[in-house]
Amino acid sequence: METSKILSQEIQTLLETKQTDQLGQLLGTSHPATIAETISGLTPEQIWQVLGVVGDEQRAEVFSHLDADLQSATALSLSRAQLVGLLTHMSPDDRVDLFKRIPEEQAESVLPALAQAEREDIRKLAAYPEGSAGSIMTSEYATLPVQISAGEAIAKLRREAPDKETIYYSYVVDEGRHLIGLVTLKDLILARPEMTVEQIMQREVIQATVLEDQEEAARKISRYDLLALPVVNEKGVLVGIVTYDDAMDVLNQEHTEDMEKFMAIAGKHEEYPYLRTPVWLHFRNRVVWIIVLAALGLISGFVIRSFEATLVNLLILATYMPMLADTGGNAGSQSATVVIRALALGQISTKDTLRILWKELRISTLLSAVLGVLTFGRVVLLTSGAELPVGMTLLAVGLAISLALALQVISAAVVGAVLPMVASWFKADPAVVASPALTTVVDITGLLIYFSTVKLLLRI
Amino acid sequence: METSKILSQEIQTLLETKQTDQLGQLLGTSHPATIAETISGLTPEQIWQVLGVVGDEQRAEVFSHLDADLQSATALSLSRAQLVGLLTHMSPDDRVDLFKRIPEEQAESVLPALAQAEREDIRKLAAYPEGSAGSIMTSEYATLPVQISAGEAIAKLRREAPDKETIYYSYVVDEGRHLIGLVTLKDLILARPEMTVEQIMQREVIQATVLEDQEEAARKISRYDLLALPVVNEKGVLVGIVTYDDAMDVLNQEHTEDMEKFMAIAGKHEEYPYLRTPVWLHFRNRVVWIIVLAALGLISGFVIRSFEATLVNLLILATYMPMLADTGGNAGSQSATVVIRALALGQISTKDTLRILWKELRISTLLSAVLGVLTFGRVVLLTSGAELPVGMTLLAVGLAISLALALQVISAAVVGAVLPMVASWFKADPAVVASPALTTVVDITGLLIYFSTVKLLLRI
Repeated sequence: METSKILSQEIQTLLETKQTDQLGQLLGTSHPATIAETISGLTPEQIWQVLGVVGDEQRAEVFSHLDADLQSATALSLSRAQLVGLLTHMSPDDRVDLFKRIPEEQAESVLPALAQAEREDIRKLAAYPEGSAGSIMTSEYATLPVQISAGEAIAKLRREAPDKETIYYSYVVDEGRHLIGLVTLKDLILARPEMTVEQIMQREVIQATVLEDQEEAARKISRYDLLALPVVNEKGVLVGIVTYDDAMDVLNQEHTEDMEKFMAIAGKHEEYPYLRTPVWLHFRNRVVWIIVLAALGLISGFVIRSFEATLVNLLILATYMPMLADTGGNAGSQSATVVIRALALGQISTKDTLRILWKELRISTLLSAVLGVLTFGRVVLLTSGAELPVGMTLLAVGLAISLALALQVISAAVVGAVLPMVASWFKADPAVVASPALTTVVDITGLLIYFSTVKLLLRI
Repeated sequence: METSKILSQEIQTLLETKQTDQLGQLLGTSHPATIAETISGLTPEQIWQVLGVVGDEQRAEVFSHLDADLQSATALSLSRAQLVGLLTHMSPDDRVDLFKRIPEEQAESVLPALAQAEREDIRKLAAYPEGSAGSIMTSEYATLPVQISAGEAIAKLRREAPDKETIYYSYVVDEGRHLIGLVTLKDLILARPEMTVEQIMQREVIQATVLEDQEEAARKISRYDLLALPVVNEKGVLVGIVTYDDAMDVLNQEHTEDMEKFMAIAGKHEEYPYLRTPVWLHFRNRVVWIIVLAALGLISGFVIRSFEATLVNLLILATYMPMLADTGGNAGSQSATVVIRALALGQISTKDTLRILWKELRISTLLSAVLGVLTFGRVVLLTSGAELPVGMTLLAVGLAISLALALQVISAAVVGAVLPMVASWFKADPAVVASPALTTVVDITGLLIYFSTVKLLLRI
């Protein structure tokens, strides 16, 4: 934080005094991610000025590290020639991402000015739907034929290295570009130079298909400790690779989305940092859910109203009412959280629904036993001066309240576990049914359980 | 899922019929992570039987991919010689993790039987506190001196490759092992063979210190797209590296912890899969928070009790009571979520507290305006048959309720944003103050605001 602020001031001073040579020297030794972070407080025009002092390659790299919205804003201020130059030097996956974000008009004017290779590449990569493995892959990967030797392979990689995202993994393909093997640079270096690629390659290659979910592809990279994951089309033809750093970004983004779904925040989440997101956008992301949940919350109110007579008859019920509703919400959230997480990590699938139910039933029975006993003790031992209707004992009231609480905890935990499974069954994201929505629903069922149980047991 | 089940059955059949040759062939072509997944349903004894048919290296790799608890259970069933053999072939970071998990007695009996190099290594790595960069680093990294040539460097890496976690990054050190540069294998391959390491190396190396938080180190790897991050001690001496795959595991684990803290679930989270975690452990992780929050929930009950007279006088208040409490909880959770996430990603720090407050104040004012207007309309237009005290108009009631709601939403959003900042100020994890705890607190303040506002405005 501190160093980037000092750097930021230094950059601004050098910009204002037009000392471009010093600026170039200063930036030349910094990591593109650091430069991007440092200049992200500047205006699009200033950013482009700063980027003007470094070489084409570094400029494209720094630009790729800027936040998505800042990339769009800066691109918008560029002339056609500037944008063409920038796009040409960006890596294919970053390039197509930027391309999808600029206005259609600008995109159309830029496309004809790009070289045919880049144009074709954008056309292909842009074809894959958002959220698919195809949409995050790059087309700059190294391939090898089976018959060449390790020595020849290294020479080939040396020639091609500047244009490839990674040369540490090379994919072995046949004449039809079908993926048939994987050779790491380590394998090549360790092999005797005259050995053929066919002798060295690993034949079982972990891979993804183009339409596979991007999160699934990212999880494969994480589970199998890969540097890159090859992506094939339905015919087994290699069409791209997803690199581990993009996989990390995907998992990170999914993490943010999960948390926000949990807390009922809508919106598309590219990497807008909190302080740079406008107030109205925050507002728009939050308002719909807040209103929907408030409307649902009114139902709880009507439940209370419909049991008005019971409540007025036995005012001690009001004391335990919020606790009962809250505890149900908490128990439901807890079971929903572990189930949603286990689903996301692939530890469980919809086939396990019954086993999960059985497990949550046992866990929540234990929880409700402890809570029931404590609540019973609380009611019976610590209540003083409560006005009870004639013929009703504190023991009976305590029993009724703790039984209702136990039922509420068990039902809430089961609902919390079932809802994500149902969502997953319908191929929806389990996280949407989590916390606030669940809490509100469980509030309603909880109050119904509470008043019905008490009414039934105490006959009021 | 399906393929791993078929594989699992095949393995069991081959085990029972003692066809170890076929078993060895079957496992030889599978990825260690796949094998680990497949055999994780077996007993520790069976697991060791399966691992018996593969070579030392593969055995250690598969073992490292097993869940932490299964590793401990299997290790417990091994003889001293077997455990020594296993530990010797494991990578240093996985080895020390296992070592920290086995019972002290077993650890003490095994230590003297290990070779001195491994013993020293365990002693060093085990010294770093849990959660530090030092605790997740490995000591098997490649180093180069400045004066040798690119050709010599490649030859050196070729010799050392089998013992290194990665040879794609080599760290350049001086005689005192101070970190002075980084050379990638790509740089070496692209360089003319006679160029020296000093001429090729990058001098600005992104690095971590041993006591740095492991999540911070993992984030550096993610931000700068690194394959590995060098870890230095307070004197700048290189002591280990953290690889990108371990960084992914750390970020994944932090994600699970964040979500569970959000939902008030306690416990240490190594990678216990949901279905394999015993019921009592789930119970133990959840029970404390449930009880604490239930006890807090009772306070809300007392607030209601203390405003009993107001409530009985104006029963329409009961209809809007749960909605008001819920909406406050939701607004608070929303702002807490975005603030916690922004803190975790390093987008904001405690210095930004005032700016965040100001932002949340504006967002929640917008939210409360919308909610206030809707609620006012709801009360005034859609209420029928409500018994109002003499001299009170529905207009006044609607105004009071919607004003209370607006105040509740604003205060809840501010509390939701401030609590994580306060936690962060005290170097505590911001996530602990999130959702259920926050909801319960905001319930209490909400009911106080509700009844006080209504009482004051309507004079009842």
